[in-house]
Formats: sequence, C-alpha cells, structure tokens
Amino acid sequence: MAKIENIAGRSRVHDNPELEDFYARLDAVGTGALWNVANEIEPWYPQPKSVPMHWRYASMRPLVVESAALVQGEDAGRRVVYLVNDGRREIAAAVGLLYTGIQIMNPGESMTAHRHAASALRFVIEGTGAWTIVDGDRLEVGPNDFAITPSGTWHEHGNEADDNFVIWQDGLDIPLVNALDANFYEVHPDLYQQPGKVNNTSILTHGSGILKPANRNWGKPYSPLLGFPWEQTRDALMQLSLVSDGTDHDGVIMEYVSPHTGGSVMPTMGAHMQLLKPGFESKAHRHTGSVVYHVAEGCGHSVIDGKRYDWQEHDIFVVPSWSWHEHVNDDETNPAFLFSFNDFPMINSLSLFVEAEYDTNGGHQELA
Amino acid sequence: MAKIENIAGRSRVHDNPELEDFYARLDAVGTGALWNVANEIEPWYPQPKSVPMHWRYASMRPLVVESAALVQGEDAGRRVVYLVNDGRREIAAAVGLLYTGIQIMNPGESMTAHRHAASALRFVIEGTGAWTIVDGDRLEVGPNDFAITPSGTWHEHGNEADDNFVIWQDGLDIPLVNALDANFYEVHPDLYQQPGKVNNTSILTHGSGILKPANRNWGKPYSPLLGFPWEQTRDALMQLSLVSDGTDHDGVIMEYVSPHTGGSVMPTMGAHMQLLKPGFESKAHRHTGSVVYHVAEGCGHSVIDGKRYDWQEHDIFVVPSWSWHEHVNDDETNPAFLFSFNDFPMINSLSLFVEAEYDTNGGHQELA
Amino acid sequence: MAKIENIAGRSRVHDNPELEDFYARLDAVGTGALWNVANEIEPWYPQPKSVPMHWRYASMRPLVVESAALVQGEDAGRRVVYLVNDGRREIAAAVGLLYTGIQIMNPGESMTAHRHAASALRFVIEGTGAWTIVDGDRLEVGPNDFAITPSGTWHEHGNEADDNFVIWQDGLDIPLVNALDANFYEVHPDLYQQPGKVNNTSILTHGSGILKPANRNWGKPYSPLLGFPWEQTRDALMQLSLVSDGTDHDGVIMEYVSPHTGGSVMPTMGAHMQLLKPGFESKAHRHTGSVVYHVAEGCGHSVIDGKRYDWQEHDIFVVPSWSWHEHVNDDETNPAFLFSFNDFPMINSLSLFVEAEYDTNGGHQELA
Amino acid sequence: MAKIENIAGRSRVHDNPELEDFYARLDAVGTGALWNVANEIEPWYPQPKSVPMHWRYASMRPLVVESAALVQGEDAGRRVVYLVNDGRREIAAAVGLLYTGIQIMNPGESMTAHRHAASALRFVIEGTGAWTIVDGDRLEVGPNDFAITPSGTWHEHGNEADDNFVIWQDGLDIPLVNALDANFYEVHPDLYQQPGKVNNTSILTHGSGILKPANRNWGKPYSPLLGFPWEQTRDALMQLSLVSDGTDHDGVIMEYVSPHTGGSVMPTMGAHMQLLKPGFESKAHRHTGSVVYHVAEGCGHSVIDGKRYDWQEHDIFVVPSWSWHEHVNDDETNPAFLFSFNDFPMINSLSLFVEAEYDTNGGHQELA
Repeated sequence: MAKIENIAGRSRVHDNPELEDFYARLDAVGTGALWNVANEIEPWYPQPKSVPMHWRYASMRPLVVESAALVQGEDAGRRVVYLVNDGRREIAAAVGLLYTGIQIMNPGESMTAHRHAASALRFVIEGTGAWTIVDGDRLEVGPNDFAITPSGTWHEHGNEADDNFVIWQDGLDIPLVNALDANFYEVHPDLYQQPGKVNNTSILTHGSGILKPANRNWGKPYSPLLGFPWEQTRDALMQLSLVSDGTDHDGVIMEYVSPHTGGSVMPTMGAHMQLLKPGFESKAHRHTGSVVYHVAEGCGHSVIDGKRYDWQEHDIFVVPSWSWHEHVNDDETNPAFLFSFNDFPMINSLSLFVEAEYDTNGGHQELA
Repeated sequence: MAKIENIAGRSRVHDNPELEDFYARLDAVGTGALWNVANEIEPWYPQPKSVPMHWRYASMRPLVVESAALVQGEDAGRRVVYLVNDGRREIAAAVGLLYTGIQIMNPGESMTAHRHAASALRFVIEGTGAWTIVDGDRLEVGPNDFAITPSGTWHEHGNEADDNFVIWQDGLDIPLVNALDANFYEVHPDLYQQPGKVNNTSILTHGSGILKPANRNWGKPYSPLLGFPWEQTRDALMQLSLVSDGTDHDGVIMEYVSPHTGGSVMPTMGAHMQLLKPGFESKAHRHTGSVVYHVAEGCGHSVIDGKRYDWQEHDIFVVPSWSWHEHVNDDETNPAFLFSFNDFPMINSLSLFVEAEYDTNGGHQELA
Repeated sequence: MAKIENIAGRSRVHDNPELEDFYARLDAVGTGALWNVANEIEPWYPQPKSVPMHWRYASMRPLVVESAALVQGEDAGRRVVYLVNDGRREIAAAVGLLYTGIQIMNPGESMTAHRHAASALRFVIEGTGAWTIVDGDRLEVGPNDFAITPSGTWHEHGNEADDNFVIWQDGLDIPLVNALDANFYEVHPDLYQQPGKVNNTSILTHGSGILKPANRNWGKPYSPLLGFPWEQTRDALMQLSLVSDGTDHDGVIMEYVSPHTGGSVMPTMGAHMQLLKPGFESKAHRHTGSVVYHVAEGCGHSVIDGKRYDWQEHDIFVVPSWSWHEHVNDDETNPAFLFSFNDFPMINSLSLFVEAEYDTNGGHQELA
Repeated sequence: MAKIENIAGRSRVHDNPELEDFYARLDAVGTGALWNVANEIEPWYPQPKSVPMHWRYASMRPLVVESAALVQGEDAGRRVVYLVNDGRREIAAAVGLLYTGIQIMNPGESMTAHRHAASALRFVIEGTGAWTIVDGDRLEVGPNDFAITPSGTWHEHGNEADDNFVIWQDGLDIPLVNALDANFYEVHPDLYQQPGKVNNTSILTHGSGILKPANRNWGKPYSPLLGFPWEQTRDALMQLSLVSDGTDHDGVIMEYVSPHTGGSVMPTMGAHMQLLKPGFESKAHRHTGSVVYHVAEGCGHSVIDGKRYDWQEHDIFVVPSWSWHEHVNDDETNPAFLFSFNDFPMINSLSLFVEAEYDTNGGHQELA
C-alpha cells in the first residue's frame, strides 16, 4: 500500500477500486504506478537499513580463538568471524555496503591464493609472524599495520610464528560489488603464488611517500604501496598533532593515501587514522557514507544517533550514512587512535557527499 | 544453510552439532561464520537479481494514456508508469540499480519543481510542446530529444501543447542512490522556478560542442549542456557511419558527452545512441554494468542470454550485468537507432568494468 | 654594468676596483655575481621584447601574390611571407614565442609532407579548393575555417582549384619549441601521404562535439578533431550572443576545444573566436600570454598600450604579454569577428597566468 | 643569408637581384620570406645554445667565501655567485632556461622577504643553522636537504649559526619565465614575514608522504611539502636499491614528489636524487629537457657529448637538451648520489619529451 504524504510535490493518490483494477493491469505488463512507491523510494533524507552497532573485542576474541580449533583454515577458505549489522543480515554487511570480519591464523598456517573483484584491506590486531603475498609481493605485517589487497590482485596469507595466533580485521566491499552485479572470484591456478626474492618490495619501493621511482608508470587504479606500517603512521599523526588540532568533528585525522596520486588507496574504499588528543571531545556531525571504526589505541566513547558506546582497544563500531556521531577520548593523559575505513572514495567519485553539522547544544547530541 | 563447494580455495565446512552451537554463540554477539556465507557472497561471476526483460510500447501506451485521466498530475507528484524488473520488485528497478518509467502529461499540464540526489534523464517519445526547467533554464524538447536533470538540480516540467499528450521516458539512478544510503529530496520552496528570459540557454551556450565559452568555469560534476537535440544526434551518427562500421558488438555507437570534459553527462549514468546499419548483425558480448535500451527508430531484434526479443519503435528492453547480448537490424534498407542509458560511468570510476566476447558459433548465441 | 635600484630587497652594489678584480676571477671559472644582473633578470613585471604591431592585409596581399610567381613552392618548402615583430627579429616571432605567416598556393599546387615537434594551425583567408592531409586525414578547408596540425603529425597541403589562389594564415609555436630546445623536423619518407578513402574523417567522427564515438581511446595530447568549419563556428557565437554579453574585456568569446577533453586544441597553443556586438566597446585589461589576432569579419579598432590600431577584414595584429588592450566594433549594425591564437594553454599549465583590469578612466586607456 | 639545404621538403631558394628587391619590400611592411629562415628555425633536431659544463666546487668555494666579506647581503639582495653557461651568457642561464647559483650566508645573517613568478629550489651544501621562511612556514635545513619556494610564495632566509657559513645551491627557472614574458617581483611590504609558532610545519603536516591530512584542500599547483630532509631521501634510495637496479641510464633514481598529487614538486621544475651503486656504469641516452646535476655524495665521472667530466662532492655539471650522457660511480665500495633538477615537468606538460638510447658500442660513447 502506498505511503501517502499530503504535501504539494509528494505523492498523495488514494486507492479506489478503479485504480486497483488499473494497478492489476499495469502489473500484468511488468509495470507499476510510480505514485504508489514514489514517497518510499524518494525519501527526504537517507534511510539506511544499517543501524549503529558496537562489537566488543572482549566478547568476540574468545569465539574467534575457539574457531581456530573448530575448523580447518583450508576448509573454511579463510577462518573468519564476520560482523553482522542487525539491519543488513541478508547481505552480510557490517554497515552500508561494507563487510568486516575477524580472521585468525594458527601458528604455521597458511591460506591458498585467490582473487576477486571486491577490494580488501587488513588491520592487524595481535600476533607477530603474519604475512600476505599480494601479486607476488610478500608483505610482513604486525599489530596496527594496515595493508591492502586491491580488486583483482592475487592474494594469500599466513602466520609464520611458532607459537602465537595472528588475529587481524578484514574489511571488504563485497556487499557493494555484489549490489553492483560486478563480483568475480578465482582460485589461483597453482593454489599458491611464488613470492619475489625480497619481502616488502612495495614498501621498499614506495614507502617514503615523498620520493617516487622515476621512469616508472603505474597504470592501476589503486596504490602501489600495499602496506602502511604502524610506526610510520603513528609518527605522522603525532607530528601533525604538534601543529594542528585537526577538525572539530574528528580531531587530528589523516587518510592513508596512494603515494602515486595522493588520493585514496583504492577506488571504492578509503581508510583513516585519527588521533584524539587527551580529553578531546569532538562535536557531532553527519554525512553520507558509511564508516567502520577500530580502536587502535586508547579508550573513550562515541555517541551515535543519541546513544553512547564506550570503547576499548580493538573494539569495532560502525556509523551508518547520515547518522550523527561524535567521539571522546576519555583518557586525560594519553592520545587515543581510531582506525577507520569507509566508502568515501566511491561516494565522492559519484558526487554524493553531503555533510551537516550538529548546531545545537554546543554541538553535542543529547543522549536518548 | 551454507552452500558448500568441494574445491580448494572455497568454503566446504559441513555442519555438525558442535558447530551449530558455536554459530548460535556467534549470533548472540552480532557475528557469524564467514564460511557459511562465503560461497554465496563471493560468487565466481556476477549473479544479478535482474533478468532480461522487454516491454512493448504497444502494450504500455494504452495504460499510460489511461493514467492521464485516472490521476491528477499534482496528486501523483509525477504521473509515471514505471517498468519493474521481475527480479527487482522490492527496489522498483528496471535493471540493476537503474529505474525507468513512462511519463505522460496532458495538454497544458505542468508539474511542481523539486530536486533530489538521484540523477535523472529524459528521452522524449511523442508529442510536441514539452518543456523542462532545470536550474532555471527552460528547455524545449521534442521526440527523440535527450535531456538531463543531474543530481541536485531543481527541475519541473510541463506540456504547453493545446491538444496533444507528451509522453517521455524517465531514467533515474534512484535504486543506486538508495543502495548507497545517499538520497535526499526537496520540494522547491516556491513550488515553481522562475525561468531565464531565453529558452534553451544551455544549448545556445554549450550546444556547438566544438567551441566553449571562454573565461567560464564550470565547477559541477555534470554536463553544462542539458539538452541534446535529436536532429544533431542523428546527424552525428549518420556522419560517423560514413567513415566507420563501429564495433562488432554495437555497430556505430556514440556516447552523449559533456562538452566541458568530453566525459559522461553525469557521474552515475551515461547514455548512448547507436546506429545499426541496414541488415547489421552484431556479435555477442557481455560486460559488467546494466543497460536500458529504447528503440528510437527502426525495428529489429536482440538476443539476450539466449532468448530472442523482437523490438519495434519505442519498445524498451534491458540487459542485466554480465548477460550475453547481440542486436540485429531486421530492416535491409533503413538504419535502426537504439538509445540506451547505463551505469557505466559509475562502473568505470570504480574500476569494475569487465568485458568478454562470445567466441564460439561465429559470435552468435544459440537460442535457448 | 649592473642596474642598481636603491630599494631594500633589490640589488644596489656599486662597482669598485676590488670588486672588479673579483668579478674577473669569477668569470674565469664560469661564474658571475648575481647582484650585477639580479635587477635585470628579476623585473618588477614582464618586460617583453615584443611590441604591439598591426599588419594590414591590404599591404601584405600584393606581396604575397607576387611571391606566388617569384618562387616555386617546392623550392621554398612552403611559400610563406612571415610577420616579424620589430622586437623579435632574431627568432622570427610575431609576438612572444609565437610565429605567424601568410601562405599562398597556386591553383593545382601541392606541398610535400613533413612533421615537426612544433605545432601548427591554419586560418583560411581566401580561396576555395584548399586541402590539408594530417596523419592521413584529408581535410577540405575554406574561408575562415580553422584547422590544426598538432606536434608530430605528418602534414602536407595543396590547392585543387583550377583558377584561384588559396591564401591562409599559418600560426606556429616554432620560437617557443626552439627556446625550449625541443624542435625536431622530418620529411615524409614517401614525400606524400596516402589519404584515407573519405575526406574530413575527423570532422565526420568528432565534429558533433556533443556525442563522441564510444569505445574509442584517444591517447594523444591534442584534439582528435582537426578542422573547425566557419559556419558551425559563426553559429556558435551567434547563438551564445543571444544569451550572453560575454566579458567586459572580450565581448562574446569562445575557445575552440578538443571534443575529447573540452580543453584547448593543443598543449602549447589555443585559439578563440570572439564576436563584438555592433558598436561594442570593451574595457581594457592586460594579462600574461601573447596573442595574435586576425580580423575574420567586420571592421573596428583596438587600443594597445595607448595606441590606436584601426583594422579591417584579414588584418592581423598582436598583443604582447602584459600589454593593455581593448577592442571596439566600429560598425553599429553588424557584428565583428576576431579570430585569435595564443600561448595560454602553456601559460596556464605552468600556472603563470596573471590578469589585471584597467580600472581608471572608465576602463579605457588614454591615447598616447 | 639563407641557409640552403638541397633536399626535397627543405628550403632551397637561391638569392637573385629580383628576390632581393622583393625581400626589401617585404621588410618594409614588417614581413619576411619564410624560405630564408625556414631551415634555421626548423632544425632537424634540437640546437641548444647551451653547452655541457662542469663547475668544480673546489674552484668556486674560495670565491664564494670571499664574496661573504666583499658585499653585504642586504646590498646584494642575495649574496650569490651564479653559474653561467658559455652559450647562454645573455640570459644568465646555467643550461637551457634554468638558472643556478651558490649562495653564502654569514653567521647570524638574514635576507629580506620577496616573491616572484619564478620558482626556486635550494640544495644545501654545507653548514648548520640555515632556515627559510616560505609563506610563513619557517623551515630548518641542513646539508643535502632539498627545499622549494614555489612561484608566488613569499620567502626569506638566514643563518642562525654562531660560527659557520651556510652555503647552498639555488635553482630557479628565471630564464624560462622571462622567455615567456611572465616574471613579476615584489618585496614583502613589511620586509620580513611573521613565521608560525612551530618550525617545519609543512614537514610535520605532509612529511610522511603515505598519509595526508583529511578534509584539507590544497588548491595550489605545487607541493604542500616544502622541505625534503636528506636522511629520509637517502633512506628511500637505499631501500629502493635493495629491490631494484633502476634504469640502464640512471641507476636507482627517484623523483621528489608532491605528496598531494604524486607529481612533480612544481609545474616548471622537477628534482631527482639518484644512487649509482658502487662501480655502476650507466649506458648513454639523450632526451629533450635540460638538467643541472649536483654531486651530493661520492665521486665518479660523466661523459657528456663525448667528453669526460670527473666529479667530486658538490661539483655541479649540466646536460643540455638532446646531449648524450652517461654516469659512472668510480668508487667500487660506496654508492654515489647525484641530486639534479630539470625542466621535465614543463617539457612533459607540453608533450615535448623525446628520448633516444645510444645503441652502439655497448651503449657507451666514444670519447672525443
């Protein structure tokens, strides 16, 4: 039944028997009356199915560790516990059209190589010894390192440690690429790649950021730098914090970028690290685009659509499109660091970015 | 229940009571086991919910005309019969994340002004006297003219004829913008815009294509040219056909472009006109991206995923992502013209375009 | 001897015997004292060697026609009378680093093919029957048509008329490309190109401007459209003049653009056509960049650095960088059309564009 | 007198009395016969006026030091000994349209602020305590640091050391900007800028290269990062050398880039650092574009147009456009580092880059 809004410029056609007969005849030729759905499909502002959610690492970690014994990595493809938004169960999304999960690898374990049109990223949570081979480049990653496996790149990974798990967070745009009817998947013909002689080639080649190899063309739409070490990232934020308070809404915030273009690391997903100075309280804003946050360091809380979420290290929470949100570092001594990934590169390339500031109550939401 | 594929690199974990208990505990903290959904959400190739469809103008026109008497334009918002893909009823899409509909305006009728984040385009089917005001520019459009009302532009339209209907096709990216949680809608505060003194300003200013006003910046992400007249379009195709046979898959095909950039008219949707020379039979191919076709002139048939669709003027048909398709002009004397619009600009900006040629049977599908 | 300016921040070192001895020792190792040249090489504002000049077609035409009998085209390479700026004789420039000349071809005459790193353009003055083959595309051009032969393209031309001369204006960036030490020259190995079957292919393919061939990549840095017919150009200006008065300084002015990018036709040189409405008097401004004007239609005058130049059809005049200039259409009934070409694309790509308005005396220079 | 070349497609018109009379009449109306200059102005390949040159630091340093006592910095504007190419004395260029000089500052000395349309760069040779304020950002620079002062930025500099000189190399595009008639100069209205509170703001903000401040627009055509420290630069080269031998012609070579775009630091000039591995001998090539080299570390030799130049630390040498050149690190144990700056960004933006390999004698020039 049509949602009627009695406003000029909106649909307000009331059913009657004659119209119902008409609608049946429309339906018979594969059509319908726009006015019966117009107010639904043209909302006044975004109506995400996703809701704000917060996953405590303390709750998830035991289950993730349990999974390491319950299933073989080779049987699972990848051994991952994924985070499901209550409003997006049917597409396995954490928020909007973004997927995220927690992957665990046993000591000495490795996964076979595959590739897909979906893009992926990793943010390492705990454990040493992790590696990932992306199009032949074997990358070594440790806690709070960020790495990408862009659309179409062969990738596999493993844990070469003798005695510790590796746990990391995966982020993918699978729901987006599926919504666009554009996903492909291939298993590597040899099951495993042959890595190059030197590890971390992309970092050795492109990691300085301020010099780039001359005479080298890079025709691909993603960053040639595949790994972003935590130490370099944390330093960048600390240095920026010496000269900037950042923005009212996010504090000191930087985007991981492709040193080839200065733009986002991949065309569909971007990633940020932000530093909340001790005691910093941001003001609320909202915008189009969906965000998955991961607490890289510190503790604090966020208020999302009027509800408070207290977070600790490695907790994950999400902000749906057009949800009000503000962040607070509850530690008066130490900075907090929030890693996040998002669909902003896509939103921006389609010119769909809209932002609004919360301009009452000093910029702070009232708790519901 | 998980879809198991007994292939290395795919998920193949069989349920058992211990795992079922585990899954329940995962669910309790808002998570799930990826291996239960992995093969579903990471398909080998795109799995569109949309199916190929063909809507005959002969079937739709009487209903569209009937609607002109049944509902008031002002009550309907716009008086439109929309085309529903059998696989996408829940989002009112014609194919993929594209919407299309047939709009009719009575003589003397006009619609109020609004704007939305979704982008729109029009392809006029029949009737003289149509006009649309886009951000203050009053455009006059006639049969087979193409016009755009990009994201965020105020627009309204009407029919100034005394004694004929105007019928046109609307195309919008509403399902896409909704899927991205980024739609907004506003009714014009005055209900109607005040048009500029001279009609067709954008055509008078930008319509030559090969010269552009100097010293004029255009900071917007869409074409400053809002209307593309049929005569100029048909001539362009006829001229190109003198020196080119075009492509095996599409014949002589041109894209409507922004004279400001030479790129697509809008960031989310593009549009083409293609000329099939008399008797031309294309070879089949498939690609990511969804397409809505409108037969602008002539008659012929297309084969889509092994099924033949015979089309006549003003019929509409759709090709879902990754569906095989080929087109034939069944007239041995006259060219056929197919207008189409698509989501290629988005697919390309996200680097998700993939194409494959049908390389058996001389490039022609066998009919199912 | 150093130019001394007794101002803080400028060089003001006076010679003395000790310094002169020092300068001699500097010179002996291939060096010098910056302070002796600093005020010269770092002027307060541009100091072009070029001066404003005006060449009357009435004066040049008889000599050009005389040349047609005096020298064989094949001996001359091209039979061209070039226009020399009084301040730039050593580099054969008309203004700044731009070259221009008047070329004449006898009935039935043709020139051999060559190519060079310098870019060229033509503006046809009189005569039918002219053609130019650019990279295999045989273009037919008539009075007031504009055509380009970009850097690196093979080109040759001729006059297929039985009984009339063709006279056109050439414009090249030879002095620029020489100043950058980047010019190359090659004679075509076969002396003549083999043209394609259909004339004017680039116009038939790209001439609509508002549609472009789909699935066709154009990897070159210049316009794929090589010819810009006068009729289409004049119409574009007339149409724009219906909705715009243009700018205070130039009236209704349009740039010839590449339909592939909407940008300038070549990376080093751009071209404009401007319409001065009947009786229009522009206000004076000045800017970096050099301009060669050709009176395409009408009569009027320009004031350049305080001196008045009265021009008639096919007169040529130049405005050096940073020279004040304003234009007047002295005809109260008919529009005047000024064709011009310039080095603005280069100036802009190097971010060296600066502009100033003449803001006294109602925007009009006082005559010297 | 015309240069005649008796080749089809070249000018080969011999003088005679009738023509001489004609030439006089052409001259009288400000014109000339192209065929008399054509072969000169359209050479077969570039004919730079610049010649290869080598300036030994050992020869220049005593004179530079002497200048520190001979003239006051405030009288000289800047106290600089500039390097003059034997072929370009009239424009004070070191090679092509590039200027370079050696600047010395006494302990405690500072220079007033100015700005100009020309772009500048610095490469520090010796001494601690140097600073430069660029648009309010006070940058501290030491030996082998690279810094830029782009077109239009206010800049001043000084030496805060108590007891040592600072000597650095300046590089500017003054001859280019003058050739383009686009230079402007301004003394700062207050003679000195007011620096920000924190030194090295641009490095603290943009120096990581792999993360960039989010939500910050940078509308300028040059790098927001103004200083490139030697330590970070040397590390980048050493790291790249672990995974790459670089190119045959340059060894391991990197370009200093804008972290905002991944492109050159300024629109007119670029800069490279290259590492020649111990004993590395490059193969010869030539290309358009002019280069000024500075030996940052090590010793070796280069062969330029068949002549050998043995260089040591802080020597400077130049390679004109289209000159053959190859480099050798004569140290079998330690790498050599060559800093260089060039006009490649301009050459590339104008699509004038051409390169050729020396393909005989194993890629090595025979010494003249």
